[in-house]
Amino acid sequence: MRGTMTTRHPAIDDLLGRLGVGGLIVDPADCARHAADLSGEPGAVPVAVLRPTDTDAVADALRICRRHGLPIVPQGGRTGLSGGAVCLDGNAVLSLERMSGVIAVDPDAMTMCVWAGTPLQTVQERARAVGLDYPVDIGSRGSATIGGTIATNAGGIRVVRHGMTRQHILGLEVVLPDGTVLDGLGELLKDNAGYDLKHLFIGSEGTLGIVTRAILRLVPATVRTSTALLGLAGFDTALSLLASARRHFGADLVAFEGMWPSYWDFVCGEARLARSPLAGRHGIYALVETAHDRSDGEAAFEGWLGEHLQAGRVEDGVIAQSLAETRAIWSVREAVGDVDPALGPHINFDLGIAPRLLGRFVEACDAALGRLGVRRSLHLGHIGDGNLHLLVATGHEQPCSAHAIETVVYGLVDEWSGTVTAEHGVGTIKRQWLARCRTENQLAAMRQLKGLFDPDGLLNPGKVV
Amino acid sequence: MRGTMTTRHPAIDDLLGRLGVGGLIVDPADCARHAADLSGEPGAVPVAVLRPTDTDAVADALRICRRHGLPIVPQGGRTGLSGGAVCLDGNAVLSLERMSGVIAVDPDAMTMCVWAGTPLQTVQERARAVGLDYPVDIGSRGSATIGGTIATNAGGIRVVRHGMTRQHILGLEVVLPDGTVLDGLGELLKDNAGYDLKHLFIGSEGTLGIVTRAILRLVPATVRTSTALLGLAGFDTALSLLASARRHFGADLVAFEGMWPSYWDFVCGEARLARSPLAGRHGIYALVETAHDRSDGEAAFEGWLGEHLQAGRVEDGVIAQSLAETRAIWSVREAVGDVDPALGPHINFDLGIAPRLLGRFVEACDAALGRLGVRRSLHLGHIGDGNLHLLVATGHEQPCSAHAIETVVYGLVDEWSGTVTAEHGVGTIKRQWLARCRTENQLAAMRQLKGLFDPDGLLNPGKVV
Repeated sequence: MRGTMTTRHPAIDDLLGRLGVGGLIVDPADCARHAADLSGEPGAVPVAVLRPTDTDAVADALRICRRHGLPIVPQGGRTGLSGGAVCLDGNAVLSLERMSGVIAVDPDAMTMCVWAGTPLQTVQERARAVGLDYPVDIGSRGSATIGGTIATNAGGIRVVRHGMTRQHILGLEVVLPDGTVLDGLGELLKDNAGYDLKHLFIGSEGTLGIVTRAILRLVPATVRTSTALLGLAGFDTALSLLASARRHFGADLVAFEGMWPSYWDFVCGEARLARSPLAGRHGIYALVETAHDRSDGEAAFEGWLGEHLQAGRVEDGVIAQSLAETRAIWSVREAVGDVDPALGPHINFDLGIAPRLLGRFVEACDAALGRLGVRRSLHLGHIGDGNLHLLVATGHEQPCSAHAIETVVYGLVDEWSGTVTAEHGVGTIKRQWLARCRTENQLAAMRQLKGLFDPDGLLNPGKVV
Repeated sequence: MRGTMTTRHPAIDDLLGRLGVGGLIVDPADCARHAADLSGEPGAVPVAVLRPTDTDAVADALRICRRHGLPIVPQGGRTGLSGGAVCLDGNAVLSLERMSGVIAVDPDAMTMCVWAGTPLQTVQERARAVGLDYPVDIGSRGSATIGGTIATNAGGIRVVRHGMTRQHILGLEVVLPDGTVLDGLGELLKDNAGYDLKHLFIGSEGTLGIVTRAILRLVPATVRTSTALLGLAGFDTALSLLASARRHFGADLVAFEGMWPSYWDFVCGEARLARSPLAGRHGIYALVETAHDRSDGEAAFEGWLGEHLQAGRVEDGVIAQSLAETRAIWSVREAVGDVDPALGPHINFDLGIAPRLLGRFVEACDAALGRLGVRRSLHLGHIGDGNLHLLVATGHEQPCSAHAIETVVYGLVDEWSGTVTAEHGVGTIKRQWLARCRTENQLAAMRQLKGLFDPDGLLNPGKVV
């Protein structure tokens, strides 16, 4: 420790003076847990971890860091998969962990005001307590913070009905790198008074400003759902079933997830991570969920499915008859969170492709990866929003480098007019691939925006642009 | 004409060379109809009207104008109410009228690619032709262009269910003032690859760039609706009815419009613009519409309303039993578009206030305007989104100036944390009032963004910031 004390960053004393002993971690052993996120990217131990408790403290801390030229990595729950919260050498971390809690809930206005460090699950539970719902949902809900989901514009399993995080943010308070506070904590659904600044910060992964508080838009709680797992001949059937579900259920279609046999057989077979609710094997598996708050909802869902079974468009299917069965169906889909030990090292692609092209894109990917000699890749995704999660094994038996695999996959994304990240964000990992889905003019505009808000490049350096 | 020819702007010859004779109007008589919009703000006759037919021509035209320092006012259907398309002295107009038409519709993906100059109604009709809907709807649908609705982030009568225009834009092609084309014509619902540039331009009223093409997100068509007009004791009842409707109908609540007696009595009585579907007089009138695509929808709506009638929360009500009756109910609300001759000169406020405060805000407004000696003001609004349209007569019998009225009303907006424009936009009219609902830091950030994209201030000068 003594060694650390003597070489410690000149900003530390000023930060200690402002944030107090409880507001700053400098012990390298304690700092080490803030080095990285869930992306697997190696992170450097931060110079210090700043733990402010209010917006003014964030603003002052950023001013001090700026004066000393100390780069800052904002961190929420560190559950990101793209390295957006990973520390580079010589960075300090600004953790929002002490700025946590629900500030106010207004059930009539269906709004909630929260500190950025509040876990997503806390937000969801507080909404449910008043008969409402915060509909953004992701597997890491227990650790992910609302600020992190705003910074990454989190998606998840209910985007087909509710949209991304962006759609649920009414107001934001943001601190700019120079300590300027943008107080945009409005709760108005309609507000066209000038440029809508909040949209700049949503999804900018902490590179333009630090979100400190937010006003969230809640939705009426879903009283009941119907959930089914369907075995289908192939992707084209899934696509026409999706179109039929959209026509039939409109805004009540909550989820339309697809799992290819590569994923299904691995999860339900070899890796034994879940039990297949279906007996036979199929060309693709679809998880369909609808919400219905009226008496004939379940019957309507069964009628819709029965029609498709009779017409042979659905080869086999089960409808959950209990909460336990609903969980069992979802457990196959959610097993993707547990594949690591069985699958070993792999690249977790988060691609976006127009839904109508997704089936052929997967075939093209398989063919190209086959030519590279790739041993194994798993395919699953949110078919309803064209979001493909492609997991490609990169173990030591792999005949080619991870970079070669990425070159091939992102090359195809470019060719098929897709995106290199649908929901996980750019972070450090996809920064080099951004040009596969953005034009030089778009990248230049992004760099200009970064230069405008963070001219010294001190906020989350090395991320996004 | 000869006089005009000799003094014409030095940019004209270059523009003629690029756009051709059909692409440029220079005759002052023809230019005059492009001077202003529906705001009532006087406009100057533009130096010329540029009428490009494609994106490259827009880019080249902007480059020529920039070289010659000629300011440009982008124009769609000129139906705006805030003076966003009004010409200042020495401005040229860039009209999108020849860049009109639907480029492609994809019913399965529920997307539509359109030129910015396409009328909103054309977009709606093309969507309906494939069983879908483009749900943004405003009274001026026949003339308003999709580009204009994007530039102003148009709202309308179905925001409570479908949100503003922003929510329906998947991709945008935008030309920056220096001629740079940002090709963001992606159709992906989920795409987190870097800063989401399109949101900067949506609602920026043509001050940062010119929208040339867009990919729109369509929604499943609403098969049937239930529409009712209700007489209620007062605003608080309306608010609790809104909360009940939200709980009961969730995402199926399409509209919840409120009309105060000031408006109702003027429109149905004195001005004879519509016929009241109700016999008696009430404290406030609510128009409620729900969508239902299933068999029990109508019964559910009638049941919900019957319960509130029985409990005395609804004093009187009618449910439309035919399309004609639905139209009759809406005609009272839509009569606001026809009040001009009967009401005479007036200020058309477009305020946004948290819904729970709206009732008391109207009372505070009335009291303050009463103290000014204001003769007449009409109140109506989208209660569901806290959007109040307040029409204050300013005829020559008015004892105070329009500025005095605006000072009082926008002062109250400031006090009640509202917005000076919920949906109409800032334009020229509300620019001086922007500080009533935006902090100095927010305004500074807007000015910085304007400076970044339009350093010479040549795009829609005098608007927004």
